[in-house]
Amino acid sequence: MRLLRRAAILAVGSELLTPARIDTNSLFITEQLDLIGIEVVFKMVVGDDRGELAGAVRGALARVDLLVCSGGLGPTDDDLTREVVADVLARPLAEDEAITARIRARFERRGLPMPEINRRQAMVPAGAVVLENANGTAPGLWLEDGDRVVLMLPGPPRELRPMLVALAAGPLKARASGLSLVRRTIRITGRTESHTEVAVKPLYEEWARAAVPVSTTILASLGQIELHLSARAPTREEADAAVDAASRQAMDVLGVDAFSRDGRTLEEVVGALLVDRGLRIAVAESCTGGLITSRLTDVPGSSRYVDRGVVVYANEAKTALAGVPAALIAEHGAVSEPVAVAMAEGIRARAQTDVGVGVTGIAGPGGGTPQKPVGTVAVAAALPEGTRSRVHQFVGDRELIKFQASQAALDLVRRILLGRIN
Amino acid sequence: MRLLRRAAILAVGSELLTPARIDTNSLFITEQLDLIGIEVVFKMVVGDDRGELAGAVRGALARVDLLVCSGGLGPTDDDLTREVVADVLARPLAEDEAITARIRARFERRGLPMPEINRRQAMVPAGAVVLENANGTAPGLWLEDGDRVVLMLPGPPRELRPMLVALAAGPLKARASGLSLVRRTIRITGRTESHTEVAVKPLYEEWARAAVPVSTTILASLGQIELHLSARAPTREEADAAVDAASRQAMDVLGVDAFSRDGRTLEEVVGALLVDRGLRIAVAESCTGGLITSRLTDVPGSSRYVDRGVVVYANEAKTALAGVPAALIAEHGAVSEPVAVAMAEGIRARAQTDVGVGVTGIAGPGGGTPQKPVGTVAVAAALPEGTRSRVHQFVGDRELIKFQASQAALDLVRRILLGRIN
Repeated sequence: MRLLRRAAILAVGSELLTPARIDTNSLFITEQLDLIGIEVVFKMVVGDDRGELAGAVRGALARVDLLVCSGGLGPTDDDLTREVVADVLARPLAEDEAITARIRARFERRGLPMPEINRRQAMVPAGAVVLENANGTAPGLWLEDGDRVVLMLPGPPRELRPMLVALAAGPLKARASGLSLVRRTIRITGRTESHTEVAVKPLYEEWARAAVPVSTTILASLGQIELHLSARAPTREEADAAVDAASRQAMDVLGVDAFSRDGRTLEEVVGALLVDRGLRIAVAESCTGGLITSRLTDVPGSSRYVDRGVVVYANEAKTALAGVPAALIAEHGAVSEPVAVAMAEGIRARAQTDVGVGVTGIAGPGGGTPQKPVGTVAVAAALPEGTRSRVHQFVGDRELIKFQASQAALDLVRRILLGRIN
Repeated sequence: MRLLRRAAILAVGSELLTPARIDTNSLFITEQLDLIGIEVVFKMVVGDDRGELAGAVRGALARVDLLVCSGGLGPTDDDLTREVVADVLARPLAEDEAITARIRARFERRGLPMPEINRRQAMVPAGAVVLENANGTAPGLWLEDGDRVVLMLPGPPRELRPMLVALAAGPLKARASGLSLVRRTIRITGRTESHTEVAVKPLYEEWARAAVPVSTTILASLGQIELHLSARAPTREEADAAVDAASRQAMDVLGVDAFSRDGRTLEEVVGALLVDRGLRIAVAESCTGGLITSRLTDVPGSSRYVDRGVVVYANEAKTALAGVPAALIAEHGAVSEPVAVAMAEGIRARAQTDVGVGVTGIAGPGGGTPQKPVGTVAVAAALPEGTRSRVHQFVGDRELIKFQASQAALDLVRRILLGRIN
C-alpha cells in the first residue's frame, strides 16, 4: 500500500465563507499531520452546496493521497459531506443500525427522544470504517479509494481533535512516511524585507543542498520580519538538528537585528534580559497609549521586573508623572527627542528603577504638521549605562504606528542591554 | 461582457499552511465582494510551490468568474503568483519600467538604494492592467481571460485593503450583479451565548419569513458575543433596511447588554459617551497592564478625553501613583474590591478628571490562591455620580483574562454613563 505523503484539508460549511468566521480546525489538523510526516499541500473552504463540494472533493483527490474533511456531518439537510463523498466515489449509502442505536442512547441519557433527522448521521458509505465520536452524535468516517484515503470528521473542535489524535497515533501513522517536519521561526526587527533577503540568500542554496534540506520563507510586516525555516527528516531529532544549525547560521548573518529563533516575542526577549541582569523597568508612554506596558505585562512573571507604566497624553501629565519640565515641552514641542529623553529619565528617577523608557509621537490620523507628520515618533531609553534616543518616521494607520513605536522602544532597550548599539 | 457572479479566493504563501498562521485577508475580500453582489463560492490556501499554485489557479478558473489571489507578489524567489498566473494563462512577462521607477523612488525616499531583486515586482503579464499600491512596492494586477478576471493583490492587509476598496467601487462593481449582501454585527457583553440565543430566537422565524429575509449567526468568545445578521436584496438600500430593522429589534430584546450594532468596539462606544458628556478619563491598572488605556487610545481623537493611565504593578506604585493607602493593601490584599475602588478614586483625584477607573486582579498563570484563584479581578469606576465596583472570576489564559478584565472595566464605565446599572 502506498504511503500517505501529501494531504489536503477541506472545511465544509457556508458560515466559513462569511466575513465573520474562519476555519481554524485546519491549524490543528496540520500540526498533527506534520508530526507524522504527512505534508499539507493545500487547504480549501467550501459552502453547503452539492456542486461545489463535489468539485472540491474531485479536485483534491486528483492531487493528494489524503483528504481530511471537517464539518458537514450534522443531522440537517445542509450537512452534505457524507453524501457527496459517497457520490463522488460511487459508494452506496446504507444505515448502520449500530450507529443509530448509539445516537439514540446518547439522546436517552439526556432524557430526550432521538429526532428522526439524526438517522442521517448513521448513513455509512459502502466500505467505510466508522470512527467513534466520544463528544458528539456524528461519527467520523475513513474511506479508502485505491491508495487514497478520505477522512471525514465532525466540525466542532472538541469532537474533531480527540478523533484526529487517535488516528494520528494509529491508522494514519501506520500509513505515513514517519518523516518528521520541524519548523523554526527567526524574528527580526530594524531591517527591511529586501535587506533580510539579501543577507540570508547566500545560505538558501547551501541549505537546499544539505543532507537534510532546509526550506525558508520570509514574512514581512511593519515593525517585524519573520524568517521561517523547516526541515523534514526520518526522525524528529535529525529534523531538529538541521533547522537548529540553519537558524544559528541565519542569526549570525543577521546579527543583532535578529532577536529570537525560538518563537519568543520581543517583549519576552526584553523580559528575559531584564531578569538576567536583575533590572526593573518603568515606562512613560504618550502616543503608544499603554501598548508598551501592556506588551511587557503579557509575559507571565513580568511583575518581577515591570515596576510601573504611565500613559501621559496630556502635557500636564507628562510633567506631573514623568517630571518633564513644562519649559522643555514649550521649547521643543511634546513630540520631540528631548521630551522623549526627559520622559525616560523622569520615569526612571520617579520609579527608582534601573531602566526608564519614554515614547512620544503622532499616531494619527490627526495631529500631523509638515515638520512633524503623522508617524513621527521619538523613543528614548535610560539605563545605568546612559540614555539613548531615536526619532522614527513610521507609516501605516494608527494601530500600526502604535505597534511600530512599541517595537522600536522595546528594541532600543534590547540593543542597549546587549551593548550592541552605535 | 458576462457579469462576475461567482468568485474564489486564493491565498498564496507556505506560511499560511503552517499551524501558526491563518489567512485573514479572505474575510475582508468576502466583505467587499458581498457588497457588490459577487458570491464567494470557495476559498483556498496554497504554498509557495509552482505546481500546487498552477493546479489551484487552473482548478479555480474552471469553476468561477473571478479569482482573487492575495500574496506571492513580493520581490523574493518564493513569490510566484505573478509568474504562475502568467504561465497558466500563457501570457509572457515583461518589465514595466514605470513600475521599476516608482519602486526605486520609494526606496530613495527612505534614503536606500533599490535592491536588484525588487525588479521582479515590475514584471507584468501581457494584457494585464497594473493597479497602483500606495502602501508598498508590489503593484496589483488585473488580468482578463475571456469573460473571467484574475486579480492579484499583495498579501499585507494595509496594502491589499485600499486597493480592493478602490476596485470594488470601480471596475469590479461595473462587472458585478449589484445584488447586495449586507451584514450587520451586534456586539454584546455581560450575558452568555445561551441567554443571547434564548432572547433572540423568537425573532429568527419572523426574520426568515420577511420579504427580504434576514439570516443570523451567533459567534461567542470570552468577554464578547456577536450576533451576525445578513440580508440580500436587489439594492443595497433594501438590504440595509432589512438588517437595520432586524438589528433594532435585537437591540431592544437584548437591552443594555448589546453595546453596538454598527461595528463599533466597546472602547469606541465608551469614547463616544465621554465626548457626548464632555468628560475626561484616567485609568489605574494592575493586572490588565496597560491594556485598558491602550484600547481607549486605539480610538482616533482619544487624546481629547484620555488624560492619563498608570500601570501600577508594584504595591508602592499603587500608593505613589494612585494614592492607595498602604494600610488598605495590607488589610484587604492588593487584589480586592476596596483596592480597586481606591485606585479608581485615587487616579480620578490625582488626574483631576471626571472619570477614574481601577482594576486589580490575578492574570496568572502564577499568583493564584484558594481564596483568590487565577482569574479573580476587581474592577471599579469612579464618576461624578458615584463609584461602582464588581468582582469577577474569569477563565482562560493570561491574555484572555486581561482582555475580559479590560472588557468588564470599560463596560462598567459604559453602564454608569448610560445610567443603566443596578
